[in-house]
Amino acid sequence: MSDTKFISFNPGPSQLYPEIEQDIRQAIEEHFLSLSHRSEKLGEVVQRAKNNLRSYFSIPVDYRIFFVSSAVEAMEIALRNLCAQKSFHFINGAFARRFFNSAQQTKKNPVHLTAEEGKSFVFEQVKIPTDCDLVCLTQNETSTGVRLLYGFIEKVRKGHPDKLIAADIVSSAATERTLFELADFWFFSVQKACGLPSGLGVIIASKKALSKAKVQAAHGADIGAHHSLLSLDEFGQKNQTPATPNMLAIYLLGKRFERLIKTGIEAVEKETIEKANLLYKWLDYHATLKPFVNNSADRSFTVVPVVLPEGTTAKSVQEALKSHNMAVGSGYGTFKDSQIRIANFPQHTKKDIERLLEALDRL
Amino acid sequence: MSDTKFISFNPGPSQLYPEIEQDIRQAIEEHFLSLSHRSEKLGEVVQRAKNNLRSYFSIPVDYRIFFVSSAVEAMEIALRNLCAQKSFHFINGAFARRFFNSAQQTKKNPVHLTAEEGKSFVFEQVKIPTDCDLVCLTQNETSTGVRLLYGFIEKVRKGHPDKLIAADIVSSAATERTLFELADFWFFSVQKACGLPSGLGVIIASKKALSKAKVQAAHGADIGAHHSLLSLDEFGQKNQTPATPNMLAIYLLGKRFERLIKTGIEAVEKETIEKANLLYKWLDYHATLKPFVNNSADRSFTVVPVVLPEGTTAKSVQEALKSHNMAVGSGYGTFKDSQIRIANFPQHTKKDIERLLEALDRL
Repeated sequence: MSDTKFISFNPGPSQLYPEIEQDIRQAIEEHFLSLSHRSEKLGEVVQRAKNNLRSYFSIPVDYRIFFVSSAVEAMEIALRNLCAQKSFHFINGAFARRFFNSAQQTKKNPVHLTAEEGKSFVFEQVKIPTDCDLVCLTQNETSTGVRLLYGFIEKVRKGHPDKLIAADIVSSAATERTLFELADFWFFSVQKACGLPSGLGVIIASKKALSKAKVQAAHGADIGAHHSLLSLDEFGQKNQTPATPNMLAIYLLGKRFERLIKTGIEAVEKETIEKANLLYKWLDYHATLKPFVNNSADRSFTVVPVVLPEGTTAKSVQEALKSHNMAVGSGYGTFKDSQIRIANFPQHTKKDIERLLEALDRL
Repeated sequence: MSDTKFISFNPGPSQLYPEIEQDIRQAIEEHFLSLSHRSEKLGEVVQRAKNNLRSYFSIPVDYRIFFVSSAVEAMEIALRNLCAQKSFHFINGAFARRFFNSAQQTKKNPVHLTAEEGKSFVFEQVKIPTDCDLVCLTQNETSTGVRLLYGFIEKVRKGHPDKLIAADIVSSAATERTLFELADFWFFSVQKACGLPSGLGVIIASKKALSKAKVQAAHGADIGAHHSLLSLDEFGQKNQTPATPNMLAIYLLGKRFERLIKTGIEAVEKETIEKANLLYKWLDYHATLKPFVNNSADRSFTVVPVVLPEGTTAKSVQEALKSHNMAVGSGYGTFKDSQIRIANFPQHTKKDIERLLEALDRL
């Protein structure tokens, strides 16, 4: 098997998209990486990336796209710019908890509702204090593989029209249709379902989000210096960024989505769900491996945590898969040893998934 | 001429280092970009980059190295972590002013001393208010080409042993010996003298800087969430970063400095000064082109702004150089049209500089 091509099912950084080498070569040949970050050509590349994202995702006209350095940075930007009082956090895993911790560090006196590990929330139990002006949620938890239903987010939205909502779509972005109107601030990073090298975060923010940042700045609040929503927007209007960005990543992002547009997000979503069904069906009937998320409605399509039988460690599975030229992620946090996580992104074909399941069956 | 290789003298992003394509290919072949950012291998690559920087720069043992996303981000980190009262800013150009603006945005009530454009400071005129606990300076101004003498920085240091000093070495780092003991927080980005693609900033911070951050955090100050000095240090101890970093850039940085170590910083410095002398000598005797910085002691070795004769615009010079397969930077800010800027970095050989001067002479 070791002569077949290497493939990584790590949830992120994950498998790179197939044409990446040729795209990097082209960037170097065009001398793109030696251009001024204030040059016209860079502006064109930023615009191409934004246009392609907008087209692929069907981003509404009143939402703007910004480039930052990571999803974790985006959390801090959301908190500084959109929260004037207190933030409320739906915690369904380690990344949602990270968002909550960022709120503590930026002095937002955050409040939280924490779900049982591997489970989602019951809407009827949700009580968001009136003095919370920002609601933070993780639509697809990369640590636990718990996915929030858009129906749930819609209920939160409708129940709290006065509050802004920030949503982490780090590991679902590009794999399914995002219902942008249900939140004001969406963010993801590119080393997961986009198949790019790490080092770029993407924010998609509503007009309402920008207005809130403006009001806060006018009141003298600290909304951040180099990457406030306002500085991002000021430079973004010129297709620039406040600081010299990861130009290679923006270049590659534009190229990647140029190709994804041809497939279309509906087709990608359909294929993603088909591959997810394949994975979960296999898991549900497996003799020793079990899915971590039991309720099928809460299961992430793109990050599948698998509970290993006692005596088997993630490390041993990863080691065994090496000889098959494949990689999976370990479990996250306290599940580091007792689980593996399998990514199901657009760069993973159905054949790739089948190859992985076959190998896992033979271990 | 157009069949000769392309070379960029843009101050940044600048010419890439020669072996970059082979290094990127190797990173992809090793599947490095699909590895978990918490993996052992990533830790080794982070450590290699830090070790090579430490060795090349002779960084003192009590200074730590951190990776962030840009130099402008580093300014914000310095201000949030090292300034409890007020910051003082030596403004010798647009990037020093940017540092000052960041201090306003992070509510540090900054105070400044601003030099005449193209000139440096007179130490005898420096008065730093006692309630300023952080002094910010730009050792090599990329906009004006004004370099601060280390003798000047030493006098500031000795005159104010109670204050911390943060120093921007964005466009001089790697080209000359940095006297680390003279400040507590040094920072640069990699798309200038390191010859890398943009998207990575490097911070070199003293123990005193880390202690100050700790004291501030203990007092409940907002020192930043995802990239406070403390979170950078917590993860840095494990050769990790708080968020998924620009892994490709860290990989390339290690490779780049592995080679630079073989030359040694003394030899690089010697060559840099020789090339700078070549440039300034040519300029001093030129019929129509003039150096922007008149006092030779204040002239940057690495960024040379050139005043164009009336009627000649930066754009026309850049356009004319295109046919010679070369690029230079435009002037900065108000000098955008009336100046060009020539970078003199380690990836620019003496031959490259001669080729540029020859072409400029023929325009």
